[in-house]
Amino acid sequence: EETLDSVTKKLKEARRLERPPSAMTKRLSCTSIKASGTLASCPPGMIATGCSCGFACGSWNVQNENICHCLCPIIDWTVARCCQMSK
Amino acid sequence: EETLDSVTKKLKEARRLERPPSAMTKRLSCTSIKASGTLASCPPGMIATGCSCGFACGSWNVQNENICHCLCPIIDWTVARCCQMSK
Amino acid sequence: EETLDSVTKKLKEARRLERPPSAMTKRLSCTSIKASGTLASCPPGMIATGCSCGFACGSWNVQNENICHCLCPIIDWTVARCCQMSK
Repeated sequence: EETLDSVTKKLKEARRLERPPSAMTKRLSCTSIKASGTLASCPPGMIATGCSCGFACGSWNVQNENICHCLCPIIDWTVARCCQMSK
Repeated sequence: EETLDSVTKKLKEARRLERPPSAMTKRLSCTSIKASGTLASCPPGMIATGCSCGFACGSWNVQNENICHCLCPIIDWTVARCCQMSK
Repeated sequence: EETLDSVTKKLKEARRLERPPSAMTKRLSCTSIKASGTLASCPPGMIATGCSCGFACGSWNVQNENICHCLCPIIDWTVARCCQMSK
């Protein structure tokens, strides 16, 4: 026969499957990706929140959510600042 | 009479109401808003994580969490990089 | 003896301890920290998503996830754009 303990145990197990512990502790994490030239791509699953460009250039745009593109005529390097939610 | 099945069903329903599935799958999403002049505003609910300015300018500040303001004397366009948590 | 009500009450209490309400309502929040010189640090727990530099400079990197470092030879101020997940 079912008891409170057995019901609780089964529900806890079901809950664990539905809602992994990571859901509780997600936080913002970011990394920087540097590339030579005018384009720098974030790793899969990450999104560009800002870009930095060589030669003091502050003009850039973001392509496809995850690629930094520096817009000045002469650019030696590009950095993508890439973020995601993580455990 | 209550059975394990009926209890489980009721608890699942209650849990669904309390904690919508979206809570589990929230992720970071961003978009860019471009405007002419020195100010660009994020859409409602989004927050500026960085700004890009015309004329190679890298000096900017953020007003009210969601407005990018480029600070160089001559600016033709401003881009706000706007992010939020979304489903 | 246990009833549906008492079981439900105990499970709700257990669930509250495991999963605080804040987990449901977390959102992105950001602030800007301005400092003189070439370095600006985010407050504890926050992460730099982008940087702004004086003298129109758009070249920067991020050290240790939370320190903005402007890279141009002459820099009077640095702003770190700092974000986190919050209630």
